[in-house]
Amino acid sequence: MATEGAVTVGFIGLGIMGKPMAGHLLAAGYSLVVHSRSHGPVDELIAAGATGASTPGEVASLARIVITMLPDTPDLEVVVRGAYGLLGALGPGHLVIDMSTVDPIATRELADVVQETGAGYVDAPVSGGQKGAQDAALSIMVGGSEEDVARAMPLFAAMGKTITHVGDVGAGQITKAANQLVVGVTIEAVAEALTLAEAAGVDPAKVRQALLGGFAASKILDMHGQRMLDDNFEPGFRARLHLKDARIVHRTAMQLGLELPALEVMTERLNALVDSDRGDLDHSALVLLARGQ
Amino acid sequence: MATEGAVTVGFIGLGIMGKPMAGHLLAAGYSLVVHSRSHGPVDELIAAGATGASTPGEVASLARIVITMLPDTPDLEVVVRGAYGLLGALGPGHLVIDMSTVDPIATRELADVVQETGAGYVDAPVSGGQKGAQDAALSIMVGGSEEDVARAMPLFAAMGKTITHVGDVGAGQITKAANQLVVGVTIEAVAEALTLAEAAGVDPAKVRQALLGGFAASKILDMHGQRMLDDNFEPGFRARLHLKDARIVHRTAMQLGLELPALEVMTERLNALVDSDRGDLDHSALVLLARGQ
Repeated sequence: MATEGAVTVGFIGLGIMGKPMAGHLLAAGYSLVVHSRSHGPVDELIAAGATGASTPGEVASLARIVITMLPDTPDLEVVVRGAYGLLGALGPGHLVIDMSTVDPIATRELADVVQETGAGYVDAPVSGGQKGAQDAALSIMVGGSEEDVARAMPLFAAMGKTITHVGDVGAGQITKAANQLVVGVTIEAVAEALTLAEAAGVDPAKVRQALLGGFAASKILDMHGQRMLDDNFEPGFRARLHLKDARIVHRTAMQLGLELPALEVMTERLNALVDSDRGDLDHSALVLLARGQ
Repeated sequence: MATEGAVTVGFIGLGIMGKPMAGHLLAAGYSLVVHSRSHGPVDELIAAGATGASTPGEVASLARIVITMLPDTPDLEVVVRGAYGLLGALGPGHLVIDMSTVDPIATRELADVVQETGAGYVDAPVSGGQKGAQDAALSIMVGGSEEDVARAMPLFAAMGKTITHVGDVGAGQITKAANQLVVGVTIEAVAEALTLAEAAGVDPAKVRQALLGGFAASKILDMHGQRMLDDNFEPGFRARLHLKDARIVHRTAMQLGLELPALEVMTERLNALVDSDRGDLDHSALVLLARGQ
């Protein structure tokens, strides 16, 4: 990593995920140029040794590698193509690494536009949440060319633990979409099963234990099943963020002409949780709906 | 087990599960009285040392412990309450152990009727399929009183590996219902996620691999996910048998006043598979529907 110490990296989006991720890059010896909508985290990182930039375009004029970590697809669109966006400053030798969870099809369109300038594009959404970001233990799902991904790898190594190069541009976002689909539907399955047991007067803790020994075993049954038994809905991962992801998966499935009924149920249930003012609970709170609460 | 060698056990229902299970009891030294609708397996077990009986009632007149392993709830109703059923011969000292997968609420009703004679009742459905039955490696989910279950335990030990006493009568069937719900919905989740990846041009094998490292990890993603990648739908567990179980779970949920939308989807999808003449495929063939096939 010593040779990477000289590399300047731009980081746009210093939210609860982005701030600790940027911090790990600083700690690893990278020169960091940062930009974010809120000034607090920018000031903190400047105090820690980063340089501030007032627009995404300015970040790209100061750094050849630019990481984005943004809330949603429209935010990324603005950062890339907006009036003060990256596009005006990008050229050959630049690499954009988007680590947000956004629309996979929009990702491919943005990558096309970026690549027309001669710059490279890698999509690299993460899982592991705030704790994974703080502990530099994120799982990173990566899409992009071999060459671009090789260039991004040392940065990923400073922020994550399990790094999987899945395929070309967009493959990272598709993998994240598949992940959020499986996680959400499995939570709903566990919620319904434990509720069935409880309603029938059978101890759901014993049912969870019995099921962990067979084909029903999953990380969700283990972790989120325990949360449901404890009525512990402190996030973790907030239902409203999972709903955002569910909508991305849903839009992608529609664009691909797929009918995915379990995805429909998951999206409706997360929506019902958010609509009833429980969007800031952990997504395992889906069990409240199964219970009729 | 030496002292158990003298015990006579009745076994009713010698299908693809029941026959090997009864064989293990014979091998463990029990005296066995058998009855089944088809003569072939009865003759085989008689050749191996069992005694044949022409009705369930006759089984109960020859054996104090009677195991049932039947296709569905109506079969069990007939074996217990039918004209030549167990009821006429049961009394104090008898124990009925039902290892079929049947309706949990019907189970409690049947147990009441059996217990009125002074006999005991244990429900003990299994998972692990034909292979688990042959290898004496079944998971057995048990409901019943401490005393009745203690009496059944040595028999379970001869047929299974993971034996969980979950609660009172009916708790075994409820646990099995919860298991079939989680397994079926998780298969649907994995089917939809891998189909989404494939439709988006991303290698589903790499997506499965990436997801196995995080919260989406499950035995189903591992085993059934691999089957989907290989288009290997040799059972395993046939879709039509899972549909039978799904209907039991569905009926139970309705009787308990629960609305469980993922269970609805799972039941509809299994039904669609059976309706399109694919009920004899492994339940992982749900992926064919996600693909629009």
